[in-house]
Amino acid sequence: MTALRPFFVLCALGCLWADQRPPIQQPALMPWPAQISVGEGTLRIGVDFSIAIAGAGGGDARVKNGAERAIERLARQTGLPLRVALQPQPTEAALNIVVEGRDHPAPQKLGDDESYALLISPDRIRLSADGPLGVLRGLETFLQLVSPCAGDPPGFCVPLTEIHDQPRFPWRGLSLDVSRHFIPVDGIKRTIDGLAAVKLNVLHWHLSDDQGFRVESKKYPKLQQLGSDGLYYTQAEIRDVVAYARDRGVRIVPEFDVPGHSTSWLAAYPNLASKPGTYQIEHEKSGPTGAMDPTRDSTYSFLDGLFGEMTKLFPDEYFHIGGDEVAAREWNSQPKIRAFMKSHKLADAKALQAYFNKRLQKTLAHDGKKMVGWDEILTPDLPKTIMIQSWRGTKSLANAARQGYPGILSAGYYLDLMQSSAQHYAVDPLTGDAANLAPEEQARILGGEAAMWEELVTAETLDAKLWPRLAAIAERFWSPQSTTDVASMYARLDSTNRWLEWLGLTQRSNLELMRERLAGGMPVGPLDAFASMLEPVKGYERQRTPYGASTPFNHLVDAIPPESDAARAFGVAVDAYVASPGGDSAAALREQLAAWSKAAVEVRPLLASNSLLAENVPVADAVEALCKIGQEALDYADSAAPGGWKQRALDAIKDASKHNAALLIPFAPSVQKLVESTR
Amino acid sequence: MTALRPFFVLCALGCLWADQRPPIQQPALMPWPAQISVGEGTLRIGVDFSIAIAGAGGGDARVKNGAERAIERLARQTGLPLRVALQPQPTEAALNIVVEGRDHPAPQKLGDDESYALLISPDRIRLSADGPLGVLRGLETFLQLVSPCAGDPPGFCVPLTEIHDQPRFPWRGLSLDVSRHFIPVDGIKRTIDGLAAVKLNVLHWHLSDDQGFRVESKKYPKLQQLGSDGLYYTQAEIRDVVAYARDRGVRIVPEFDVPGHSTSWLAAYPNLASKPGTYQIEHEKSGPTGAMDPTRDSTYSFLDGLFGEMTKLFPDEYFHIGGDEVAAREWNSQPKIRAFMKSHKLADAKALQAYFNKRLQKTLAHDGKKMVGWDEILTPDLPKTIMIQSWRGTKSLANAARQGYPGILSAGYYLDLMQSSAQHYAVDPLTGDAANLAPEEQARILGGEAAMWEELVTAETLDAKLWPRLAAIAERFWSPQSTTDVASMYARLDSTNRWLEWLGLTQRSNLELMRERLAGGMPVGPLDAFASMLEPVKGYERQRTPYGASTPFNHLVDAIPPESDAARAFGVAVDAYVASPGGDSAAALREQLAAWSKAAVEVRPLLASNSLLAENVPVADAVEALCKIGQEALDYADSAAPGGWKQRALDAIKDASKHNAALLIPFAPSVQKLVESTR
Repeated sequence: MTALRPFFVLCALGCLWADQRPPIQQPALMPWPAQISVGEGTLRIGVDFSIAIAGAGGGDARVKNGAERAIERLARQTGLPLRVALQPQPTEAALNIVVEGRDHPAPQKLGDDESYALLISPDRIRLSADGPLGVLRGLETFLQLVSPCAGDPPGFCVPLTEIHDQPRFPWRGLSLDVSRHFIPVDGIKRTIDGLAAVKLNVLHWHLSDDQGFRVESKKYPKLQQLGSDGLYYTQAEIRDVVAYARDRGVRIVPEFDVPGHSTSWLAAYPNLASKPGTYQIEHEKSGPTGAMDPTRDSTYSFLDGLFGEMTKLFPDEYFHIGGDEVAAREWNSQPKIRAFMKSHKLADAKALQAYFNKRLQKTLAHDGKKMVGWDEILTPDLPKTIMIQSWRGTKSLANAARQGYPGILSAGYYLDLMQSSAQHYAVDPLTGDAANLAPEEQARILGGEAAMWEELVTAETLDAKLWPRLAAIAERFWSPQSTTDVASMYARLDSTNRWLEWLGLTQRSNLELMRERLAGGMPVGPLDAFASMLEPVKGYERQRTPYGASTPFNHLVDAIPPESDAARAFGVAVDAYVASPGGDSAAALREQLAAWSKAAVEVRPLLASNSLLAENVPVADAVEALCKIGQEALDYADSAAPGGWKQRALDAIKDASKHNAALLIPFAPSVQKLVESTR
Repeated sequence: MTALRPFFVLCALGCLWADQRPPIQQPALMPWPAQISVGEGTLRIGVDFSIAIAGAGGGDARVKNGAERAIERLARQTGLPLRVALQPQPTEAALNIVVEGRDHPAPQKLGDDESYALLISPDRIRLSADGPLGVLRGLETFLQLVSPCAGDPPGFCVPLTEIHDQPRFPWRGLSLDVSRHFIPVDGIKRTIDGLAAVKLNVLHWHLSDDQGFRVESKKYPKLQQLGSDGLYYTQAEIRDVVAYARDRGVRIVPEFDVPGHSTSWLAAYPNLASKPGTYQIEHEKSGPTGAMDPTRDSTYSFLDGLFGEMTKLFPDEYFHIGGDEVAAREWNSQPKIRAFMKSHKLADAKALQAYFNKRLQKTLAHDGKKMVGWDEILTPDLPKTIMIQSWRGTKSLANAARQGYPGILSAGYYLDLMQSSAQHYAVDPLTGDAANLAPEEQARILGGEAAMWEELVTAETLDAKLWPRLAAIAERFWSPQSTTDVASMYARLDSTNRWLEWLGLTQRSNLELMRERLAGGMPVGPLDAFASMLEPVKGYERQRTPYGASTPFNHLVDAIPPESDAARAFGVAVDAYVASPGGDSAAALREQLAAWSKAAVEVRPLLASNSLLAENVPVADAVEALCKIGQEALDYADSAAPGGWKQRALDAIKDASKHNAALLIPFAPSVQKLVESTR
């Protein structure tokens, strides 16, 4: 076994660069490693590629399974007929894994060592780590390094590289709502594959809400029978997913949202409700609805029973109780509850919820669990072992940290809002109020979680709503705080998006199929061209249109990614042009506008051909109008525009920027910049 | 329950047409039904779509499972959130399935009734059949009819239609080699999905050959241990696949190829060999190699034992023993075998093989099986229960039929030869010598099988080599003999190709991923454009280059479909232009040539960027040369060409038609036609 060579040896071989700031292009690693140096030259991956495992901790099944999966994935990435068999001897292997540490007990815990070192020298690859998680993270890095060789003979190569890597934050997750729309097990597993690929380590599974209770309870079977539309995970499936995730270095943190967001529970067990009556799972839009009665002992004995069952099913040490958005009116309107509050000296609904949380926390502590909840659960008399997940922002998070509570940030990472990768990438858990915390307070901010709420998302569109934007967030949580170059991020995100397809993620292929569907029997090319310049409306705008469980999400807006790469590139080019109008830049802008205008014309027969596409005609009109204005603005860059043209143009842009069919035209602001830049 | 309405009722509602000849466009049914009439108007498919099952035979699990799968697939095709639950009452369902017959015992048998009637009226769909197979076939037809509605509100519709359908031939299959390259179970299941979707009913599983024995034998475990590279199906997997196929109306006919093509057996049990020695599975190209010794009783007791085990594993009444391409030298070179032949009055190797076959036939008959073999097994003293599969052609097949043997045609349907759909579509089992047979002889020709030999095909490329061409062959086997319009076939094949994607077939998506891989980190668009005008070389040309089990099939030629749609369309346009040179047709040809030439220029930076793509530079050169010549030929349509131009052009076309990187440029012959049409 070769000892880990020091940094300078590789650089002595010809060090191209070694820096924390990633270059724009290769290698397209995401998240960017903590330390990397790339030398000259490559190591060739041949059909004899193999992996050997050594070291005191090499016996962990996660290492062996991870290595075998890496060979399978490498075969898929390269088309090489590789044998998925590990070598018994390090000397025979192209990649030697060395696991230094011995004990890595189940379950995976917050803070388990994820660091690794990857050394690619001309004749050997060495991946060393203290524990199995480091190996899994390092294997992902290795796979991202593989690309076609530059020179003969034909094949695949990895650059000579030395990487020393570890995460910035120990809690890096995705909160996934499966209540509003159910996601079958294969979708959950695909998502876990994706999380592991970009080095995220928590799937926070939002398993219950007003729209459905999604886990089989053997103790309270009405929860899934009456509290869902028949779509839920059996306990066997849950155990399968938990094992699947553990194998990939991902913790599963379940959330059972109480005492609000619990209509599905009340549909099954109306005695839990604050307000007497019958309840049904919520089929229409979401928002605060019924709440459990925190004044009755029967509520607690029910929750004790259920949590006793569920804490056994989910081995993670954290257990999420939600606790968000409780409608105070559900309590304040009930005389019996008001009387209870008075007799217990609980000033308001907030105090009553704190009382409820304290009782739950004791139950969970008894089951060996640490309680997690959204901002609302924060009250000073809960023990410091609980954790706060903040949907409110860094101010709320910093406030918790100052009081001694650990926390994670989710505000700014809501993927359902259809914001850009750049917007999410700019959000850092340690900025704002959190930047001013003392070091020991900052240390309580453990990381963050992206969140995907599923009101408008189905199993079909899930991948496209998660990826690739989630990879940019993953980089924010893993990479050094200084890794902030947006152009580099987008360049690497593009490669990462393609690389993720080898894992079986469907963010591109499913949208292609959806556009095929919209095109009916006609060629889809014109629709693809048209779609490439559009984006879905942002924030909660689309939720203002009525929707529900039976709403089909099969329109054009559902069949496009959240971000238009073409519009983004145009925006960059317009900014450059406006800053320095000379040279060839105007010609490139004209060409793009002409191409978009042409696409908006050529798609019209398709839009007219069927009922699903007809709603997009006003969008095509607006695209044509915007392209015409953009061309005029470029005309008037040198010569003065006719009187009143500028105002007419700005009015027309405003008009063309109205949203139709839940779509927006993201290059409209760039056209406006062009108009504003005319004389 | 509504009675099946007679044909004229629908026509009374407004019959658009009723004919056996399919129109060019809609509905894009493939295979084309025996009888169809399409009325005016449509039935809308809503989120309340459901299926009910009735009739004496409605209890068959295949019907229930097929109906549930149809709802799932409809949900995927439309994006509608459909509930996968069957209705108890016909009155509550949108689609009523009526299964008339009662008894449909397992296993599925050759000739089981597959006919069905599908009536789509304005308020209800009725699918009636005598048995479960008819229901499965009819559900596929129904799913192919679904497309976006023309008018408001947005949604999906099926045309008002009446179909009475049944197959022309009872044996409609695919012979799939899994020895040369192993295809994992998921690939086999995906293939079965595809077969069922285009109404094929036999998967002939070529499970052993020189390169590998692919089934677990518990009796002779060395067969899979030493006779394969570790890749084989366990018996549990075989049983799973057989059940999966049965559920979809597909029979599994296993083939164990003996006494030739059996090197993998000899590697495991060298005592079976005619020539003493040690054997290894064949890693390099295929061709006649070792053969079993048909003179020793131990050979027969081994085969008795194995077939006894395998006939229990595969319930179909047919069992394929291969029997093709035995190398006579393996026997003639052995004095002991020559002595046996002499003492048994066996004139030559052919007679010895007949002796071998007779003994095997008795063994199989004892196990309740009918023996199938390739042309070579045909000898007059075998019983008429055996079946001949002809790789030699209709002459050989007709010869067998005349002697009283049933047979199926495979010659002309070899998908590994990369021929066009049109070429396969033109082959009919009842043409050539078979056309002149008496009716009772013709009745012995039971159908045909496409064949996929896997020397150059992997699990990654399998779907692209099978689909969509196999759908055209399926139509040949199912539809009336008069269904021969090639333009209609291609129009419907294009829709079918897209429709098959909803099943999860990967013929397009996998090739896209492969081209992404070739492009490395660079945008793949230029490569896609370049690839769209190319085709792989045909026949066995590519096999002349050495290859083997460790050869990667990850070049551009592996990443393109067997047929270029663009080149085919160009060929049609050139033929029209040459027949009648006036009008706008020249402009369209010029535009296509200019686009191809541009693509050949724009792909060059990509071709230069990595080692896997570099081999395609001469192809880009040739494309540019051909496009230039084509433009010149159009120039000289009106004015006389310079002296010697025509000959120089023809020489240049010949030069540009040389094959590089196993690719050909399929529009070269069309350019030649343009040159030849100049004055």
